[in-house]
Amino acid sequence: MSTMEEAIKIAAANRDQALEDFKALVRIPSISTLPEHSMDIQRAADWLAARLEKLGFENVQIFPTEKHPVVYGEMLTAGADAPTVLVYGHYDVQPPDPLDEWESDPFEPVERDGNLYGRGASDMKGQLIAQLRSVEAMLQAGDLPINLKYMLEGEEEIGSPHLAAFIRAHADLLKSDLCLNVDLGITAEDMPSITYSLRGLSYFELRLRAGKSDLHSGLFGGVVDNPAIVLSRLIAGMKDASGRILLPGFYDDVRALDEEERKAMNAMSDDWWLEQSGAFELFGEEGFTPGERAVGRPTLDVNGILSGFTGEGSKTVLPAEAMAKISMRLVPDQDPAAVHASLHAYLEENIPSTVEWTLDEHASSKPSIVERDSVGMQAAVTALEDVWHAPVSFVRMGGSIPVVGLIQEILNIDTIPLGFALPDDNIHAPNEKQNLTTFFRGIEAYIRFTYNLARLSREVR
Amino acid sequence: MSTMEEAIKIAAANRDQALEDFKALVRIPSISTLPEHSMDIQRAADWLAARLEKLGFENVQIFPTEKHPVVYGEMLTAGADAPTVLVYGHYDVQPPDPLDEWESDPFEPVERDGNLYGRGASDMKGQLIAQLRSVEAMLQAGDLPINLKYMLEGEEEIGSPHLAAFIRAHADLLKSDLCLNVDLGITAEDMPSITYSLRGLSYFELRLRAGKSDLHSGLFGGVVDNPAIVLSRLIAGMKDASGRILLPGFYDDVRALDEEERKAMNAMSDDWWLEQSGAFELFGEEGFTPGERAVGRPTLDVNGILSGFTGEGSKTVLPAEAMAKISMRLVPDQDPAAVHASLHAYLEENIPSTVEWTLDEHASSKPSIVERDSVGMQAAVTALEDVWHAPVSFVRMGGSIPVVGLIQEILNIDTIPLGFALPDDNIHAPNEKQNLTTFFRGIEAYIRFTYNLARLSREVR
Repeated sequence: MSTMEEAIKIAAANRDQALEDFKALVRIPSISTLPEHSMDIQRAADWLAARLEKLGFENVQIFPTEKHPVVYGEMLTAGADAPTVLVYGHYDVQPPDPLDEWESDPFEPVERDGNLYGRGASDMKGQLIAQLRSVEAMLQAGDLPINLKYMLEGEEEIGSPHLAAFIRAHADLLKSDLCLNVDLGITAEDMPSITYSLRGLSYFELRLRAGKSDLHSGLFGGVVDNPAIVLSRLIAGMKDASGRILLPGFYDDVRALDEEERKAMNAMSDDWWLEQSGAFELFGEEGFTPGERAVGRPTLDVNGILSGFTGEGSKTVLPAEAMAKISMRLVPDQDPAAVHASLHAYLEENIPSTVEWTLDEHASSKPSIVERDSVGMQAAVTALEDVWHAPVSFVRMGGSIPVVGLIQEILNIDTIPLGFALPDDNIHAPNEKQNLTTFFRGIEAYIRFTYNLARLSREVR
Repeated sequence: MSTMEEAIKIAAANRDQALEDFKALVRIPSISTLPEHSMDIQRAADWLAARLEKLGFENVQIFPTEKHPVVYGEMLTAGADAPTVLVYGHYDVQPPDPLDEWESDPFEPVERDGNLYGRGASDMKGQLIAQLRSVEAMLQAGDLPINLKYMLEGEEEIGSPHLAAFIRAHADLLKSDLCLNVDLGITAEDMPSITYSLRGLSYFELRLRAGKSDLHSGLFGGVVDNPAIVLSRLIAGMKDASGRILLPGFYDDVRALDEEERKAMNAMSDDWWLEQSGAFELFGEEGFTPGERAVGRPTLDVNGILSGFTGEGSKTVLPAEAMAKISMRLVPDQDPAAVHASLHAYLEENIPSTVEWTLDEHASSKPSIVERDSVGMQAAVTALEDVWHAPVSFVRMGGSIPVVGLIQEILNIDTIPLGFALPDDNIHAPNEKQNLTTFFRGIEAYIRFTYNLARLSREVR
């Protein structure tokens, strides 16, 4: 029996303990957004640090940030020739509201119908435990074939406000060959998948001002410009009625979708998209299907707009100011800096001299794509196929995981996204759960990924 | 000495009493918007009703409305051949805030530098007293040559919410040949003027909805339409960058300005308009000056716009709904109903099938214009010129006085706007005042207007 098979056997034999670990961590209500739970955040960090130390990790530290701490630990026993993997995860959870819609206590995990119910079960304490149990099994089998560094944050559910600074400040400590992000999911219980590409995000706030103060439309209507109309004209010029974005050069760096990708993106029907979105009608760039547009094409949207009087009834005010929040979802190989420059140039050219303006960037994260034939990706694919005995589908995600872009930018390494949440796990909702079959398969998948990565890395070298 | 001259002499001899009346009425803090002053509103109504009865008015009534009462009284002694004039005014005032910017108690009137300071002095208790004192002088001179009906409301400063219903319900009682609206002003202390035209107002609220609920832009960006962008495109199509309104047929009924009118509208320089507005730059329809655009041309403005997330920072929401308040100032001979129909047709044609929409009308008042050579207008012009010994300028006002349109619509009579506020009277602001020279001239002007009207009406007949 190979060491890998040995480790898989050990993990299978220890399922009850894995489940106990899982429950123990879910019992800690580590809600990052509620100040009254800051001690629980600390307890969760302590729990993880203690577990890392027990496993034999070295240099285990709980790094304070301005809010919630980052748990770090490393096991560099595989030697300089073996790859070093940075494992990213988070130990904080969403609040459980609305509480009365839960069928059981969100922080007293309960097994029902092959699932473990509890806040954070799927997002993402199950995956933290699965990853830790995989390491424990490999150590018990006698061989952890790669070097590991753990970076577990406590602020993911509040937008990771201090993670970039942390990574920047500890770039040397975190130096690795590859990142393994375990905060992800698969398509369905029997459909293993890997998210190989995420969209990026550029988010702007545009403010226009036409004068010192609001004016009365009876006195000054016809005399001054209206910033809400100027803003409307600018927005109208950013995207045409067929859904094509008009900012200069916006599509220049968009990577074309290949046939295989388009096929994967078209798994769901238009009716499915209509039902999921609750929209009255589907809409988007001509020449692409909803599935393609949702993950494989860039977007431009207004997320918010405000000017003047917006209460009930009427007020004959000429607003002095108007504001819009405008964001773009970006796809490989678009660059948020180029998008920012293009938007700025468009505004410079089109904003009339009647208004003063500011453009602030609230978010900027690069789109990411990991080559499907890379060593890390192949290690993951083989792992999933050997556990599930089913083909792995490569999927793109329409959202952004900013940490992937951050790690790419600061540490200059790719991220392999490998996690085991399911779409029906009620993430961020009442009755969050983790499918336990998937959880146990996840432990085996992490073991296989680790050995595959070590082997493929040796072969490449 | 004619009866008119006699009345003028009596009024001049009674200036001290006029001033005492004026002060007594200002002392009543009849603030219509503050519930704690409802008894003061009642006191002011009682004061006026008592004064009318003392003068010999008949059928004096304090009509309750859903909020503040209307004071009515009539003196129909001039006979069926004499014209009947409906005098419109209001006895309520704005709140005095900010109190600490007043140099004296807003409700303890003080004479300073030829002015009487106090809340409501210029808007418009001074004009109520001037009108009442003119009647008193004419009665003492032995001849009130026209029939009078007084309609004094207590809700003007809160938008006259119950006046239309009152006029409709009492149309027979209020039946007259002409309305005299005393809630106006003149250009400057030594520049008498008459406002012969007011703009009308159409005020709409447009709401667009693209689906059941807000969506996450990472999941659905690219799949659904964005109502804030649709709204922007619609607004952008309503007015071009040169300030011309593009709604079909919008300018069809706009009455051209004659040379005399344009000359009057250009009394103020561009610099004056720039300073008064506080705008960074003046803007408006090409081919017209700011002065012309402010009063003689129609407008289309966005008064408010709202969609999605408008707090600090960023939220990657795809809003389900977007709203705009859109209003037009109208000039003779535009019709609010036609404007409503034109906007509706434009929306019908241009709103895409991705959104559902509603269009609500919040306000609709017709523009008004009184022919400058009409009997009522000539009576007013002659009165002012004989008091001021200066030429009267005809001015248009950019705002709307809804009661003028209401009275036109329900009672089918023109309004002669004749009041004596000055532009620097700090109406609605701290240190409101009434210039006392103008106040006393106002009494004489109302006397002369009354006799002129009686005489000119006889001549026409």
